[in-house]
Amino acid sequence: MARACRDTLMLSIGAVREIQMIPHDVHLQIGSLLFERLDQIDLTGPFEVLSRIPNSTYRIYAKKADCVRDLHGLRLIPDATLAEAPPLDVLHIPGGYGQEALMEDEEVLGWIRRQAAGACSMFSVCTGALLCGAAGLLKGRRATTHWASFHLLPYFGATPVNRRVVVDGSRIFAAGVTAGIDGALQLAAELRGEDAARSIQLHIAYAPEPPFNSGTPETAPPKILQQAQRSLRGITAQREETARRIAARLGIRVGDQGQTAERR
Amino acid sequence: MARACRDTLMLSIGAVREIQMIPHDVHLQIGSLLFERLDQIDLTGPFEVLSRIPNSTYRIYAKKADCVRDLHGLRLIPDATLAEAPPLDVLHIPGGYGQEALMEDEEVLGWIRRQAAGACSMFSVCTGALLCGAAGLLKGRRATTHWASFHLLPYFGATPVNRRVVVDGSRIFAAGVTAGIDGALQLAAELRGEDAARSIQLHIAYAPEPPFNSGTPETAPPKILQQAQRSLRGITAQREETARRIAARLGIRVGDQGQTAERR
Repeated sequence: MARACRDTLMLSIGAVREIQMIPHDVHLQIGSLLFERLDQIDLTGPFEVLSRIPNSTYRIYAKKADCVRDLHGLRLIPDATLAEAPPLDVLHIPGGYGQEALMEDEEVLGWIRRQAAGACSMFSVCTGALLCGAAGLLKGRRATTHWASFHLLPYFGATPVNRRVVVDGSRIFAAGVTAGIDGALQLAAELRGEDAARSIQLHIAYAPEPPFNSGTPETAPPKILQQAQRSLRGITAQREETARRIAARLGIRVGDQGQTAERR
Repeated sequence: MARACRDTLMLSIGAVREIQMIPHDVHLQIGSLLFERLDQIDLTGPFEVLSRIPNSTYRIYAKKADCVRDLHGLRLIPDATLAEAPPLDVLHIPGGYGQEALMEDEEVLGWIRRQAAGACSMFSVCTGALLCGAAGLLKGRRATTHWASFHLLPYFGATPVNRRVVVDGSRIFAAGVTAGIDGALQLAAELRGEDAARSIQLHIAYAPEPPFNSGTPETAPPKILQQAQRSLRGITAQREETARRIAARLGIRVGDQGQTAERR
């Protein structure tokens, strides 16, 4: 099937909020990237929303057709391989520790780049943003990612924005892990209107009531934040090293303090 | 491995909050039931929390070792079969349309009954509560489930409580779908203390910001609620018929209006 929105996009002037302009009677091809050691809810949170978007086909794509394990062992099977994917209208890129292994994988980066070039919308969750960055898709963008990797966004040419969901034109970035549900609802509203998003929200009973207030570095008790930072030190150092290498490849120069981040 | 908490429970007087009493150095066996046409986030939401509980083994069990499809097609593979499961300390039962097919499946109901009898904690999400009810485990309990099935709880002998998470002694009930994340964090706190739950919450960046306020029948626009009720009419009627049959089997009499529900 041809991309639903290419013609629509041709009609739009400027890059802002063009995804609202897709006619609701145009069928959408929505696809998620699945990879080894992703953080499963970066995919399964959005799945709950994306699989309910009216007049759409939603599929999950991976390098191979085999079962993939998330970073805590959940076993998921893709619907098809990257090579089998049609041109997508909406491209969803999750994150998780396994993102690191793909940061210089041209098969995956090239696929992301080609799909994003024609898609109406690109949607990253958590450190999926770093993968988009490695594909060169964050240059000049406002973006967000997991709090532990937030400081790395400038290496990909992005301005970090400390919000749970950041919408920059046709690109939507959700912050860490569970933020993918909020981002997907925002995406659903952009694609099919707010009532469609509200209907999905009611079906999935999304009226969250976290029993504690510890979901961000700003709200978590300092001791718990320090423990979390310690436990993430290894992967964060590795991601920093990779980010510097990619910045050099992309020709992006970052000062010692990084670029100034927008704070809400 | 022997159940971690049987001895602990023997020491507790009364049924309230005994799960707090498990020593943190006792290893826990945590297990989720996986079945065809479940609603995947009833499992994958809690997975994100349960797979991070300190000093525990977390596995997913199904009737067969084969791949299972959720109601929107996500393909998941269990870690082992029901028969291979060790005695569990924590038993997690998700819901979704596929729950209906198991409501009179003695292989599954017997497994739930046997595991729940020795577990420290039983945790249901969404219409997983109806499965627990069909296993006879809701009699005399305060419980909750998805809003569209809430009125069915009295057929299983339960008092419906219109809260997102209901804790009744060692049993935790989460309401619809995404409520499983809130319930699992509550469970983590009961099992390993509030700081452990706060640490998990920070790692998974759970500080939700739904872009709309439409996640409950009370907050959704009336038109959207009516549409959702219409789309769920078929499965709800089927669940009602099943619930009446099971009530008869369990010897539970329900008046025309059901029992009085607790409202918050």
